[in-house]
Amino acid sequence: MDGEKVSVEAGKPIVCKAAVAREPGEPLVIEEIMVAPPGHHEVRVRIICTTLCHSDVTFWKMKDYPAVFPRILGHEAIGVVESVGEDVDEVVEGDVVIPVFLPECGDCADCKSKKSNLCSKFPFEPTPWMPGDETSRFTDLKGEVLYHFLNVSSFSEYTVLNIANIVKIDPSIPPSRACLLSCGVSTGVGAAWKTANVEAGSTVAIFGLGSIGLAVAEGSRICGATKIIGVDVNQEKFELGKKFGITDFVNVGECGDKPVSQVINEMTGGGADFCFECVGLASLMEQAYASCRKGWGKTIILGVEKPGSQITFQCSDVILGGRTLTGSLFGGLKAKSDIPILLKRYMDKELELDKFVTHEVSFEDINKAFDLLLEGKSIRCVIWMDK
Amino acid sequence: MDGEKVSVEAGKPIVCKAAVAREPGEPLVIEEIMVAPPGHHEVRVRIICTTLCHSDVTFWKMKDYPAVFPRILGHEAIGVVESVGEDVDEVVEGDVVIPVFLPECGDCADCKSKKSNLCSKFPFEPTPWMPGDETSRFTDLKGEVLYHFLNVSSFSEYTVLNIANIVKIDPSIPPSRACLLSCGVSTGVGAAWKTANVEAGSTVAIFGLGSIGLAVAEGSRICGATKIIGVDVNQEKFELGKKFGITDFVNVGECGDKPVSQVINEMTGGGADFCFECVGLASLMEQAYASCRKGWGKTIILGVEKPGSQITFQCSDVILGGRTLTGSLFGGLKAKSDIPILLKRYMDKELELDKFVTHEVSFEDINKAFDLLLEGKSIRCVIWMDK
Repeated sequence: MDGEKVSVEAGKPIVCKAAVAREPGEPLVIEEIMVAPPGHHEVRVRIICTTLCHSDVTFWKMKDYPAVFPRILGHEAIGVVESVGEDVDEVVEGDVVIPVFLPECGDCADCKSKKSNLCSKFPFEPTPWMPGDETSRFTDLKGEVLYHFLNVSSFSEYTVLNIANIVKIDPSIPPSRACLLSCGVSTGVGAAWKTANVEAGSTVAIFGLGSIGLAVAEGSRICGATKIIGVDVNQEKFELGKKFGITDFVNVGECGDKPVSQVINEMTGGGADFCFECVGLASLMEQAYASCRKGWGKTIILGVEKPGSQITFQCSDVILGGRTLTGSLFGGLKAKSDIPILLKRYMDKELELDKFVTHEVSFEDINKAFDLLLEGKSIRCVIWMDK
Repeated sequence: MDGEKVSVEAGKPIVCKAAVAREPGEPLVIEEIMVAPPGHHEVRVRIICTTLCHSDVTFWKMKDYPAVFPRILGHEAIGVVESVGEDVDEVVEGDVVIPVFLPECGDCADCKSKKSNLCSKFPFEPTPWMPGDETSRFTDLKGEVLYHFLNVSSFSEYTVLNIANIVKIDPSIPPSRACLLSCGVSTGVGAAWKTANVEAGSTVAIFGLGSIGLAVAEGSRICGATKIIGVDVNQEKFELGKKFGITDFVNVGECGDKPVSQVINEMTGGGADFCFECVGLASLMEQAYASCRKGWGKTIILGVEKPGSQITFQCSDVILGGRTLTGSLFGGLKAKSDIPILLKRYMDKELELDKFVTHEVSFEDINKAFDLLLEGKSIRCVIWMDK
């Protein structure tokens, strides 16, 4: 079906298969659903493959709002435009696109500025609807509304996306690699490249060696960092991390009475130039800040904590330390301009994407992808829709 | 006595007048003291004039450590090198210098880096001694040790400084203007220019319109900021602030139920590009952070809070806001290279220093300078040693 140019279904609902999260923590149910045609500034996309990211699992397990059910999860993917709604000039049927959870309208002050990737026309919030809308494009065959997830909902053969959430890409790039740039790998690599601007020869400490942390290592490696310290509770992550550029390791469980920050300060002669928190734990964010070098250290927060969680610093550390603290959503990347740059780096063999893909499953085995992630066995498991 | 080339006292102690802080909060006592000759890498300087900065008052009022008595306060000044100790090549007798509390050894990793102004050979701490030493160069005529203050102690006709704490300047610059760059004005102007790198056309919010805040306004004005919002509890500061570039004002006492950050968000359509906290209140630091624009806002902390005070943020604001938080000591300036640049800007009539000087007194009236500052009447009161 690749390369379709005109959809026979354009303008009409499509019935297709989706993996629906009906209850928190329960296996997804593959069932037939109905996907409405794309509205104004929207496109309907046939997903080629999707992957599973930790945020999917977080919202799958979560019992209370902002978690809602029944919902179509999934936000890391690649697909082909099946049909376009009104006033869509950016893509045509048959274009290969990557969906991105973080909108880029292209028109607001943020999108026009080089300094921000936080679109102010569609401020990012984990709502269960289409962006800028309070409606769903999904229903089950009984007519019940199925909620959207992170503006993408890629655990479906077809999904509807606002054009602010798609990036057109070169169709010759292998889809199982390109889809990685839809969220996790871009977030980590971008945090090193764009938010932190890691310098050649610098020292980096990465708190949490999940897929985001490994992607930060990969980004730091590409930027030329010479000492890349992984910090994790799982010693096995050191061997794994080496493939991504990790040169040193701190096992949090083996620091004894010393705070991690003290260990890192000792290892680096005063602190790392760049510290990245990739777990989403307030206490670890504070340790990351305390681990970065006085005078010029930068701490970048990527991990998402529970709503209401707080982070606390000593005022004297802030004023006397000269350190910088920054939050980074989607690695500071502007999707439409930066993802093509990352894809070029992959094609030029600078950015190594292959090593992130540890497993591949067919769509009907999507729950295996959850098991693999929960057991800590996978980095990225590619889920093929047509296999 | 200006222009002396060889001191007849070189290598010997000098007896001279100093204003000694003997008890917390009590008027300074002008008395004769003994100033030792400069040691290795030290110079003895005859102070021409000095000014009073809030930190002097803070440590004068403070009852417990790090406040100590008897002490020679004062750290904003200008003087003439009377004699030099061993291995001093940077200056000779007769050179005009500005003392700076923040050391710059020139040799450590921080001093060699463009990114840091926090010398790691002499880490800044408010100790009562010479930097890198645990000795004093001052005694009273009974032989009792008088403590140093912030590496400078300028409330004395003569003081001893490490060469890391002096900047040689063009002697043709009026001393009552040059001395302002010794601390406060440099800190504020530097925070806008160096730490924040305020951009032309940007929006700035300044929390606290004391002398530091006014200097931030002056720096922001020079950088081309078009909207400079002063935030203070004293409405009179608006008129005063206008001379320094303040264009808008928020009276904290008149915000009603709204947090200041909400008022500023409304005034600026989403937050200021740059927020500067110049008071040293944790709650105001948090408001400053909340007042800066999502996507690219920078918050710079200049105010010094009480030891042990903490600043708290919502984790979600950090990760989702894309804002940056930075502490700024001495405005991020590297004294030896940046003060001459600021002095040139003064001579070129870009940086307006005259308006900072609201009063001038003779050394014997130094306690009047304290009264004027405590009553909120002065910005800078120049204290002339020989008048």
